Amino acid sequence: MNIQEIIAKKRDRKKLNKDEIEFFIKEYTAGNIADYQAAALVMAIYLNGMDMEEITNLTLSMAHSGDILDLSELGIVVDKHSTGGVGDKVTLILAPIIASLGLPVAKMSGKGLGYTGGTIDKLESIPGYNTNVSEKEFIENVKKIGISLIGQTMNLAPADKKIYALRDATSTTESIPLIASSIISKKIAAGANKVVLDVTYGSGAFMKTKEKAQELAETMTKIGKLAKRETITVITPMEQPLGRNVGNILEVIEAVEALKGNMELDVKKVVLELGSVMLKMAGKGENLEENRMHMLENISNGKALKKFKELIQNQEGDVSYIENLEKFEKAKYIIPVKSKKMGVVTKLPAEEIGKLSVYLGAGRIKKEDNIDYTAGIELNKKISDRVNLGEVIAIIHTNDKEKAKEAENKIQEIYEID
Amino acid sequence: MNIQEIIAKKRDRKKLNKDEIEFFIKEYTAGNIADYQAAALVMAIYLNGMDMEEITNLTLSMAHSGDILDLSELGIVVDKHSTGGVGDKVTLILAPIIASLGLPVAKMSGKGLGYTGGTIDKLESIPGYNTNVSEKEFIENVKKIGISLIGQTMNLAPADKKIYALRDATSTTESIPLIASSIISKKIAAGANKVVLDVTYGSGAFMKTKEKAQELAETMTKIGKLAKRETITVITPMEQPLGRNVGNILEVIEAVEALKGNMELDVKKVVLELGSVMLKMAGKGENLEENRMHMLENISNGKALKKFKELIQNQEGDVSYIENLEKFEKAKYIIPVKSKKMGVVTKLPAEEIGKLSVYLGAGRIKKEDNIDYTAGIELNKKISDRVNLGEVIAIIHTNDKEKAKEAENKIQEIYEID
Repeated sequence: MNIQEIIAKKRDRKKLNKDEIEFFIKEYTAGNIADYQAAALVMAIYLNGMDMEEITNLTLSMAHSGDILDLSELGIVVDKHSTGGVGDKVTLILAPIIASLGLPVAKMSGKGLGYTGGTIDKLESIPGYNTNVSEKEFIENVKKIGISLIGQTMNLAPADKKIYALRDATSTTESIPLIASSIISKKIAAGANKVVLDVTYGSGAFMKTKEKAQELAETMTKIGKLAKRETITVITPMEQPLGRNVGNILEVIEAVEALKGNMELDVKKVVLELGSVMLKMAGKGENLEENRMHMLENISNGKALKKFKELIQNQEGDVSYIENLEKFEKAKYIIPVKSKKMGVVTKLPAEEIGKLSVYLGAGRIKKEDNIDYTAGIELNKKISDRVNLGEVIAIIHTNDKEKAKEAENKIQEIYEID
Repeated sequence: MNIQEIIAKKRDRKKLNKDEIEFFIKEYTAGNIADYQAAALVMAIYLNGMDMEEITNLTLSMAHSGDILDLSELGIVVDKHSTGGVGDKVTLILAPIIASLGLPVAKMSGKGLGYTGGTIDKLESIPGYNTNVSEKEFIENVKKIGISLIGQTMNLAPADKKIYALRDATSTTESIPLIASSIISKKIAAGANKVVLDVTYGSGAFMKTKEKAQELAETMTKIGKLAKRETITVITPMEQPLGRNVGNILEVIEAVEALKGNMELDVKKVVLELGSVMLKMAGKGENLEENRMHMLENISNGKALKKFKELIQNQEGDVSYIENLEKFEKAKYIIPVKSKKMGVVTKLPAEEIGKLSVYLGAGRIKKEDNIDYTAGIELNKKISDRVNLGEVIAIIHTNDKEKAKEAENKIQEIYEID
């Protein structure tokens, strides 16, 4: 077997068998197949596709290309993953709620890259919070308080990391076989046996249309089943950013407010939908409506917020910041942007807001970039909101005066008001 | 402009404009575009194709990626190129014939790689012959004696070299836009203003069928015209090796014999067809049949052989070898292979014979490999020839006893006799 033959097969629209896919993943991870050969194969997969069996074999090969986290001693662990969004602080809210309902949460998250944020960056904006925890400690945490949220400390699915970087540089990201295998392989490597997937669509998501999101969701459900990991998908629009705040500290503040009961409606919809499904999958309640009620109860009775504080404390974070949100550091320039028009907000593209937020310092363009935790944008007005002349539509947070100026103009451009 | 956008365009079956193609070639040659990005684009071109305008722009960009040889002081120079074959010694025979008829021959050739031989290796098997000649000396040679055959000493079409190597490693060789641009760009860089192309097809050629060869030929004629280089194509079957001998010294001997008038029929057909067209293109005779007659005349009157000897002498080769072919070094093991069957030869795949010849030492698998000039195969019987039991079908030449043994069996396998 050699890589040229494998490339030629996919080039000619033939089906790759299990051995061929395993050979590719193993040898590419080991550095025996060149990046340019992998790139040619990935483009051939992008253009000629893969069937469910091929995608499943690709997923399992990638999952087994590095360490596999063993969470079996925790019983049923339901993992959650979102295909990405702007202002997506769902994990910060959802995880403590379901943990407070007795469902163990053992979750590894990634750092943000590009215009979508990362849960790990948001957690690290809480002073002291330690995301760099050993496998053993991670499991101990979950056993002790029922929840742990950490970064990817292990060598999980290294093949996926290599292929992901390659796809970014070769315009082959928007491919269903490649997206599906990337997501599910990471979840398998992270120890999940049940997974809820939030598939987003719209300007701020990989999938630009609802149809494409549905196709991806169906593919992932099928390969989850073939890979013996029960997988349920939920489809969420991402035409505009989720919730009110974009940026790390700003999103932590919004998450804490949500756990206090002040949750934005769009965020609430996603949190309740995902949580109710996760509870059902874990055998904690058959009726989705009842599950939602239990979740809301644990917000009103304070148990969810209490669990969040336990999590912060247990991972060395300073809980006083959660108790008094005013303690969080603020950006030097906090600039309200006033509308120059009157009317109704018709468009607020998530991707544009995400990019602007990165520009203000809240995210990374390259992996090595530093993040300014205080930077970001508050969205006072969202789609369908009425706006008066001179009314504040958004608030810019940044430490860079020059950028603040430019961001003001950009906000005026991004908001479509008719 | 960035390479990701260019890849995405071709990925989506869109047409690349001149600026985009030039950007790719320039930046890839300069090392600013990674091999894996070029590989993804090349696979997208392979699968989604290119129109004539795109191929022409690709060809011209590649031609101008390095040095361009200026042959203008020689007047009309007609170059000749073959898309490759086994036992193809046509240049060695054709070049002195047409030079003896007053058509200047200034030709740069490549070394052999893989199962097809290279003219330069054949010339270097003549003791003393110098293929490494400066541009100035090269032109002086042609002015002085009307002919010079040298290796590629200049930095001609470096973009083509990089892309060619990449295609080999990524199973994207058999693509008409990529083959056509590769060939024509090299010819333009080598100074040709008129080109005759010998497009081969069959088991020993890039193009496996006559239809594919015709498609390639038409493409090259069109882009030659668009690039303002008159291009005529001739289509030649390569189902079996060309002529009688395969291997470097063996082919030189066959070429000298041909110039003495003992030319194999299949070789003669190609030599006369290409030569008559070249003479016509150079304005040396409108009538192809008459041109053929002039070529044959210059074989019978010895002028073609004389020109060949002049060429050898002028480039420091030892002419005594040409005058007495027995002087050439011989392989240690010269083993006749006797037929184990009786009947008619029905198949003698060029590719298999080419590979066997490389195995015996006559060619290179990697660029760095050394060549054994004495190694090769004489084909006593070819397709349609009658064979008796025990009759010699081929003669193996090698310096490796072990390989000789295996080659004997291989010859029996390759020859199909029914």
